[in-house]
Amino acid sequence: MAKGNPNFERLRREYIFPIIEKKLLELKELHPDVDVINVGIGDISLPLASVVVSAISSAAQEMAHETSIRGYGPSEGYKFLKQCILENEYQKYGLSPEEIFISDGINTDIANALELFASDSRVAIPDPTYPVYLDSTLISGNNSILLPCLEANQCLPKPPKEKVDIIYLCSPSNPTGVAMNYDQLKEFVDYAIENESIILFDSAYSAFIHSSDVPKSVYEIPGAENVAIEFRSFSKSAGFTGLRCGYTVVPKKILLSQNEEQVALWNLWSKRQSIKSNGVSYPIQRGAESCFTPEGKKQISYQIDTYLESAKAFREGLAELGYTCYGGVDSPYIWWKIPGGFTSWEFFDILLKHCHIVAIPGRGFGEHGEGFIRLSAFTKLSKVRTALERIKNLKL
Amino acid sequence: MAKGNPNFERLRREYIFPIIEKKLLELKELHPDVDVINVGIGDISLPLASVVVSAISSAAQEMAHETSIRGYGPSEGYKFLKQCILENEYQKYGLSPEEIFISDGINTDIANALELFASDSRVAIPDPTYPVYLDSTLISGNNSILLPCLEANQCLPKPPKEKVDIIYLCSPSNPTGVAMNYDQLKEFVDYAIENESIILFDSAYSAFIHSSDVPKSVYEIPGAENVAIEFRSFSKSAGFTGLRCGYTVVPKKILLSQNEEQVALWNLWSKRQSIKSNGVSYPIQRGAESCFTPEGKKQISYQIDTYLESAKAFREGLAELGYTCYGGVDSPYIWWKIPGGFTSWEFFDILLKHCHIVAIPGRGFGEHGEGFIRLSAFTKLSKVRTALERIKNLKL
Repeated sequence: MAKGNPNFERLRREYIFPIIEKKLLELKELHPDVDVINVGIGDISLPLASVVVSAISSAAQEMAHETSIRGYGPSEGYKFLKQCILENEYQKYGLSPEEIFISDGINTDIANALELFASDSRVAIPDPTYPVYLDSTLISGNNSILLPCLEANQCLPKPPKEKVDIIYLCSPSNPTGVAMNYDQLKEFVDYAIENESIILFDSAYSAFIHSSDVPKSVYEIPGAENVAIEFRSFSKSAGFTGLRCGYTVVPKKILLSQNEEQVALWNLWSKRQSIKSNGVSYPIQRGAESCFTPEGKKQISYQIDTYLESAKAFREGLAELGYTCYGGVDSPYIWWKIPGGFTSWEFFDILLKHCHIVAIPGRGFGEHGEGFIRLSAFTKLSKVRTALERIKNLKL
Repeated sequence: MAKGNPNFERLRREYIFPIIEKKLLELKELHPDVDVINVGIGDISLPLASVVVSAISSAAQEMAHETSIRGYGPSEGYKFLKQCILENEYQKYGLSPEEIFISDGINTDIANALELFASDSRVAIPDPTYPVYLDSTLISGNNSILLPCLEANQCLPKPPKEKVDIIYLCSPSNPTGVAMNYDQLKEFVDYAIENESIILFDSAYSAFIHSSDVPKSVYEIPGAENVAIEFRSFSKSAGFTGLRCGYTVVPKKILLSQNEEQVALWNLWSKRQSIKSNGVSYPIQRGAESCFTPEGKKQISYQIDTYLESAKAFREGLAELGYTCYGGVDSPYIWWKIPGGFTSWEFFDILLKHCHIVAIPGRGFGEHGEGFIRLSAFTKLSKVRTALERIKNLKL
């Protein structure tokens, strides 16, 4: 009998979304008219910017004519989009369009990136974290080393004590909502240079950064172009969660050892993509391109500002009520320290039952997420205010 | 230093498209006004069906409103599309919507499917074949066993003599253009049942089948639902090569051995997808759905018929000129046996230089492709006629 990949057995995580769904359904069965405020899943709620809608429609119309139909596109993405990304984001770091690969989102790329490495690599992963890092590490057969994000370090990770091959980093962090400042990120880049490790830098929430000492890109740190891949997405910056478009920056300078020699990681990624991908939908790439027009930038700024306003209201509102929380400054997430010694699932139940608020128990992001709950600010200010009113009336 | 995946070193294939591009450029530099007929890459040329264009535009418009914006979709695809596919294609085999997974195309899925298996699996691969099967097998570390597609067997593979774990099959075949009849496909399914192997059945060109004894789906063969995964795409049936949408049928009955136990392959695929994918773009899934409306079916039939008419003209025209060729009946590809003892690259050069025709040398699809050249019929009848005129005047 054909043998299954034994690494799937290593997946022991509690999958929280089905449990949350079930609890929500139970509440709605008991109280059908209840007005639930969902600040759980980090999904966008504002309508798609109109420039993007128009760009997708125009691109679809182009396909209706024999002279302008586009078939297979380049697996690494269209030049028009790569050039836009370069000029707006990466030219200042001396990178080139060939070092930008368009994909259908960070989720895919951040998981697939592990295919470039030997399968006995040591992978350092912040805890709590976006679950894909650990799950992908487990099913690829690699060894994981957790980096606790402790309150003593502002809920951010510290570089590992031991030598590792790969480090997943996410700043601003999902779930803690805290962004690394220049010195904190430099500590990781310096570690990677010293230990010849590779940083997989998840920059999904970079558009939310406005603090001056917080780098928007890992390449702000000298030497990062030798050790770091950066993942970005239009999901959270431009409301593309349902459209699927992101990109990965792979500098040609990064080297790996392979059979006694050295090989550019770029070569492996390039081969992998040309073999295993046929690229991203043409109309969607045109939609992404439109985000860089003056009107696109204006519309997207408005969205980011709206979500940041909600984050600020949440953060300040909870502080006023005497609670401790992290994040929400350069990020749409608030990491709320649970009062009264409840576990994160217990507190989830309390919020759901008494406030009709859906949040995410910190435990779902890893063992060091216990004691916290994540709130998402991808919602309207009025809903945040209602949520805060309900929390105010909560008797713990 | 972090170690690269050593399996990338196993990729020794000659990548033909850059070579073809270079030769074409050289020709155009020498003769800028030359009218080149490109029947090389198997990419569509007719405009996208208008139902699909409208569906994509409408879905993009939906995203422009707060009440109808769609964020993250299910990683396995939207129910509306799965249900359509089921009703039109798979209900007759007793399958359910959960057994259909929407993806961004066969290329991705057929390569990713190997992640479900132990990395020391023996993988049988037809030769010549779609290059992704072998390349994915090599970079996943598995062992490949080639199944020669010899003229004596109508350029189709025969089941292996030894026991293998996985068999890639493609019918109608890319590149030979020949489709397996019922008995030929049954021989493989029976082999898989007897040897407890899994068939990865690439059905990308099923829409071109009209011969009555040629199965459109592997599930027409009794017992296939226990041993076969089927991959389908909107690329070739509905002109989606630039839009990216396909699907994979994974029956729940298929079992693998895993750590002394048995596990449903469906469970592994389902976990893989939920970890490593965020699904396919919503407007594109709406576009795919529109292919199943009465108007969509009509428009798509017209496209398939047009391409088949070109294939027929190519096949019959070459036969009239005294050449031997295979395929082109239930497929858009013609597998032309090279006259005069030329190698496939030599004959490529002759066709390019003397007829200004771009084809694909059979060698590019594997060692047993030598001696053949592939012509694609994704072009207008008038171009096929011009190509045949030029071939007629060819002095070999």
